[in-house]
Amino acid sequence: MMTTNLQDPRDPRLRAWAYLSRVVEGPCRQLLALINQVGPEDAARAVQSGGLPQVLDRPTRARRQDDHSARDLELLIDMGGELVTPDSREWPAWRMLTFDQQEVRQDLDAVAPIALWKRGAVSIDEVSSSAVAVVGTRAPSSYGEQCTIDMACELSAAGCTIVSGAAYGIDACAHRAALAGQKPTVAVLACGIDQVYPSGHDRLLGEIVRKGAVVTEYPPGTRPARFRFLARNRLVAALSDAVLVTEAGKRSGARNTARWGRLFGKPVYAMPGPVTSVSSVGCHQMIRTGEASLVTCGSEVLSDTGLRERAAQRVLVGSGIEPADGLDRVTDGLDRTQLRVFDSLPMRGGAGLAEIAVSSGVPAASVQAALAVLEISGLAQRGDAGWRRAKKAC
Amino acid sequence: MMTTNLQDPRDPRLRAWAYLSRVVEGPCRQLLALINQVGPEDAARAVQSGGLPQVLDRPTRARRQDDHSARDLELLIDMGGELVTPDSREWPAWRMLTFDQQEVRQDLDAVAPIALWKRGAVSIDEVSSSAVAVVGTRAPSSYGEQCTIDMACELSAAGCTIVSGAAYGIDACAHRAALAGQKPTVAVLACGIDQVYPSGHDRLLGEIVRKGAVVTEYPPGTRPARFRFLARNRLVAALSDAVLVTEAGKRSGARNTARWGRLFGKPVYAMPGPVTSVSSVGCHQMIRTGEASLVTCGSEVLSDTGLRERAAQRVLVGSGIEPADGLDRVTDGLDRTQLRVFDSLPMRGGAGLAEIAVSSGVPAASVQAALAVLEISGLAQRGDAGWRRAKKAC
Repeated sequence: MMTTNLQDPRDPRLRAWAYLSRVVEGPCRQLLALINQVGPEDAARAVQSGGLPQVLDRPTRARRQDDHSARDLELLIDMGGELVTPDSREWPAWRMLTFDQQEVRQDLDAVAPIALWKRGAVSIDEVSSSAVAVVGTRAPSSYGEQCTIDMACELSAAGCTIVSGAAYGIDACAHRAALAGQKPTVAVLACGIDQVYPSGHDRLLGEIVRKGAVVTEYPPGTRPARFRFLARNRLVAALSDAVLVTEAGKRSGARNTARWGRLFGKPVYAMPGPVTSVSSVGCHQMIRTGEASLVTCGSEVLSDTGLRERAAQRVLVGSGIEPADGLDRVTDGLDRTQLRVFDSLPMRGGAGLAEIAVSSGVPAASVQAALAVLEISGLAQRGDAGWRRAKKAC
Repeated sequence: MMTTNLQDPRDPRLRAWAYLSRVVEGPCRQLLALINQVGPEDAARAVQSGGLPQVLDRPTRARRQDDHSARDLELLIDMGGELVTPDSREWPAWRMLTFDQQEVRQDLDAVAPIALWKRGAVSIDEVSSSAVAVVGTRAPSSYGEQCTIDMACELSAAGCTIVSGAAYGIDACAHRAALAGQKPTVAVLACGIDQVYPSGHDRLLGEIVRKGAVVTEYPPGTRPARFRFLARNRLVAALSDAVLVTEAGKRSGARNTARWGRLFGKPVYAMPGPVTSVSSVGCHQMIRTGEASLVTCGSEVLSDTGLRERAAQRVLVGSGIEPADGLDRVTDGLDRTQLRVFDSLPMRGGAGLAEIAVSSGVPAASVQAALAVLEISGLAQRGDAGWRRAKKAC
């Protein structure tokens, strides 16, 4: 699960990604479309030269002359970080498919990030393969804190990565619970990777970097701002299988993360509390209106989402434990869907998602999930031609 | 709202009802059918004589020789009580229509009572015209007690009658909250009207009798038993517009009352609590499974059920306050549905529910609700021929 930083700040393609990541403010559908069409280097050149159609000219005009890419990358690499781009092996590609859903595309702000500035010991793609966003109020009650810790401990012990926003309160409880159990956790920031925000979380962020990952779509130096928190929340939801709000007041930002979860079609849960507590008003409202389902413990989340099996598999795969007697076929431990997907993978060459979906008869969304497990298990690999069986599995 | 006891224990028809009420154990669909067909006196004679079809012979065989009706009625009347029967003006007839619904009739135990043994200062029909069942665990937490009191106070202050089972714990909190606000409350017992159960509730039951009503379908001397609690719960739900479970453990009897509420098509609510409290486990389960909707305060129940308007009207009607200037027509203060129903009532003779539903274009269930309000407001009256406008409204 450890990643190595072999990035070169002089690499022109990496420079192009870094430039593109800064030239717009946060998510930008038009720029993504251009990059998809012509690649990052040509896209960067086109933006720099100006004269783009208005939909692209407007969001890039203010910064297109400022190419800080070399400086940004040097700073990042000096900090031990790396720029995770769609070129990278650890780009959470199937998480990003979230943004390609028909209903999601109708939301102007529901756009994938251009790249992720990252510090951390783990691969984003791997740790987010079974992940739960645990979010809530910045001013929790002791009840909210304790229950968040209990829930996050239970979820991470079962193999789920806890994704949150590193804010004071519930976010911090969730990260700390995972770290206390020596489990990875992912913090998604609403500012540059070099910023310490909130300032009191210097040590916490350091520990998350050492045992998990801190990511942001904002280039170094970017200050936190309200609109960035809202945009950040979409990534918290996108990188997770479910959103859990453990404690939220009437106007908590956690409800925004929950909204993203719903938009993305992910299950959203809320923990109830005393009706006399203002800190639970937001959770109760979400349950009342059907925006969230009530959960009282981590195991309810694990069962409802089906994450128990998937996460358990990851624990097994990552544990380095040799298969016991009778469990000696490489495909032992796969569930039926994963087996069907595995059996449909070509031995050589490669196949696309749609092709695998057709040949296996498994819906595309489940194919993605299965491929993630197969890849982590070392049974499948991605190449230029698409997915194929890994060598050891042929 | 005060009722007067003018019953004569020698009245042969009343004797027949009392006999029939004792001859079977609790609800009995076959006996009800017979009474509906031939009336109480002939039904009593037929049962006494034996030789009935087996479906009726079996449930009545054990007690058909024991006619304690005179003694039962004397005891009741000595206690200041009365036997409320389908002949009585205060028989909650439209509440009992609950049992006539198609889906309800499929449940063998969902049967109307034969009669109600009653002690109390108020008319069951009137006070249950806007009523909420508030039930829960016998061993509540202080949180559960306090929130039950808050909820019941809010509901009864708004004009809703609190119906419950006079048990220790949540039931008692609910009754006491209503009484504290000088509001009527109805206790439905699972034993005879002469029994003090639970024994510690002697004073509470006395106070409910003075300011509200205590009712039971069981004749004097009947001891409480588990199956009687379950049968009793159906009456708690049937006499109410909604069921609210404020605190319930995993196996609380309140979940049985909630089940009746759902069967009857009434809204069922549960109050959440700390997830760390075993006393709230039942409420949380009901919310999770969709058996109940989450509510955090009385006003949510009032809004969700539409009881706010209906109950408020009852408060106005019962307050004796003269209509203010400009509010001088008898129909002022009625809502649109009530007005439509009122306008469809004949000036003389009478019309049945179905007929009024057709002529007003209002669904039968809403016609019932509207008629209850109109009757309490003195605008409609029931006669042998059905419903008609009251004299003052012609």
